[in-house]
Amino acid sequence: MSISDNIRQRMIQGSWIRRMFEEGNMLKQKLGADKVFDLSIGNPVVEPPRELHQELQRLAKNPLPGMHRYMENAGYADTRSAVAEQLSQEMGVKFSHQNVVMTCGAAGALNVVLKSLLNPGEEVIVFAPYFLEYGNYIDNHNGITRVVPTDETFIPRLDALESTITARTKAVIMNSPNNPTGVVYNQDLIDKLGRVLGAKEKQLGTHIYLISDEAYRKLIYDGIKYPPVFQCHHQSIVASSHSKDLALPGERIGYIAVNPDCFEHDDLMEAIIFCNRILGFVNAPALMQHLVRKLQDVTVSLADYQKKRDFLYGNLVKMGYSLVKPQGAFYMFPSRPPRTRSSL
Amino acid sequence: MSISDNIRQRMIQGSWIRRMFEEGNMLKQKLGADKVFDLSIGNPVVEPPRELHQELQRLAKNPLPGMHRYMENAGYADTRSAVAEQLSQEMGVKFSHQNVVMTCGAAGALNVVLKSLLNPGEEVIVFAPYFLEYGNYIDNHNGITRVVPTDETFIPRLDALESTITARTKAVIMNSPNNPTGVVYNQDLIDKLGRVLGAKEKQLGTHIYLISDEAYRKLIYDGIKYPPVFQCHHQSIVASSHSKDLALPGERIGYIAVNPDCFEHDDLMEAIIFCNRILGFVNAPALMQHLVRKLQDVTVSLADYQKKRDFLYGNLVKMGYSLVKPQGAFYMFPSRPPRTRSSL
Repeated sequence: MSISDNIRQRMIQGSWIRRMFEEGNMLKQKLGADKVFDLSIGNPVVEPPRELHQELQRLAKNPLPGMHRYMENAGYADTRSAVAEQLSQEMGVKFSHQNVVMTCGAAGALNVVLKSLLNPGEEVIVFAPYFLEYGNYIDNHNGITRVVPTDETFIPRLDALESTITARTKAVIMNSPNNPTGVVYNQDLIDKLGRVLGAKEKQLGTHIYLISDEAYRKLIYDGIKYPPVFQCHHQSIVASSHSKDLALPGERIGYIAVNPDCFEHDDLMEAIIFCNRILGFVNAPALMQHLVRKLQDVTVSLADYQKKRDFLYGNLVKMGYSLVKPQGAFYMFPSRPPRTRSSL
Repeated sequence: MSISDNIRQRMIQGSWIRRMFEEGNMLKQKLGADKVFDLSIGNPVVEPPRELHQELQRLAKNPLPGMHRYMENAGYADTRSAVAEQLSQEMGVKFSHQNVVMTCGAAGALNVVLKSLLNPGEEVIVFAPYFLEYGNYIDNHNGITRVVPTDETFIPRLDALESTITARTKAVIMNSPNNPTGVVYNQDLIDKLGRVLGAKEKQLGTHIYLISDEAYRKLIYDGIKYPPVFQCHHQSIVASSHSKDLALPGERIGYIAVNPDCFEHDDLMEAIIFCNRILGFVNAPALMQHLVRKLQDVTVSLADYQKKRDFLYGNLVKMGYSLVKPQGAFYMFPSRPPRTRSSL
């Protein structure tokens, strides 16, 4: 045998989402890009905000000496400070650059966090339906995935969460706005979730980390306010990305933010910076760090996304699909419509 | 306990090289950048070739639609083709884009290759002195590092290699031009190395992968010709990077090239592309892929590096240091000079 048995097994189990995307690319080449509507992966169809290309032009014209070199593994201190300032405004908690590490997107961020936390065989809880890569990320670092169901509106069932947590539970991954359902968790749910985790920590004498994947935090509709996780639980870590809010998914730029009140905060930050290095990311791409430093308060047009959501949601419902109306992100998770008499 | 026990242990063992770099950055802030000469990590002091900023300006001015989006996890087909063409010229083996995967630098490439190959407990051989991150990369994917010594000129001892290979040996990592010695392996050594691996594969009924870390392949002096590994061993994989040849280490752009004659080539490529995705790299940064596509035949000035080498080597020898003259890369590995009577 040549390749890893584990990887061979995982490849068989599933790359269906990526295969649809690659099939779509082939169809586009064959039929023309205007003939194929690819809804397979989370690839923004919009272009980045014009501020991004303005800033890129400025940097390309007047390159800073050393701007493509290695920097600290955590990222440039001024980029980390810019993210910290934005987070402080959004989250109602005071962040500094010392709570932030720049990463190769949210996928990089999640791998770094899991590598930093997990001992072999420790468990990580996810809420179904979930972004299927979580299972791979947890397995990469020798963790075990435990799945907790959600209710008919895709809200985590906290009674099921409670009974799934054991002394081996190291972390819970939540993802709001959610991929693949578009559901946004409200303040009440976040508060209750924090209380469950806090009570279980006390009962078991362990720390349980709440890892909040917030790749879609800024893509939120209907004027909803995003409830931050940091007040609800001390052991909380945000993994985020500019892939969606700046429409830059191919550039691999995101960040990790650790709750300043987290137990052993400095050790955890040191571990995260170390893992960012040894997993081979080394640092988030330098040029993107220079760009996003200036763009923390810029987002793609939410109105455009909301219009698309309204159009698609309205028509799917008319066609007989049953689905929860997404309040964020750009996904829908409809049930198959019931068969009509004529189609039987 | 909060963080992973393994990570806590590894952090204690060593981050000395990175700590020197970060200490250097602090000293620069304190004393002025012109007062501190930082020789700690492989951070090019030169700027990228001017062709790079020309191309960047062109792209920033006329952004291609979708140029920052996700692409195939392997990278853009035309960037992979450009790398394949350059490799075909340098290596005397015909490559196509199907043998190449774009990665987040050589560090990303090595992690992806090791993840693709290793079952838990399988062994990877390195030649001392070696780039210390190899030990972390191998451990990331549950492999075991076995160290084989080199002779007094830092050439691998093939007799020691032979006796270290067992049925559990999955791969050998070589690195020429070498970090930290600057030594370049010659054709004769590469041929002999290939014969040892081939004989052991036959004897043990296994496949042993030769992973050639060629981050410094284009930084080579004295008109030496670089001997490619692909002819010497079927199971050969190159991990490389534009960090050094284009002076872009912070941008994380490199590639993996698999020998077209490799056993189960297509399975291995599929595993590599899959691991590039699930380790959280997802894909090499998009903008850098657009840039290096056009810059495969461009390299920073070798004359400048050679001048620095000559100056430093000549003066270190004069000062009584004993060292092997580097033929590539930008490292020196001197012995401490013997104490003179007056210093006793």
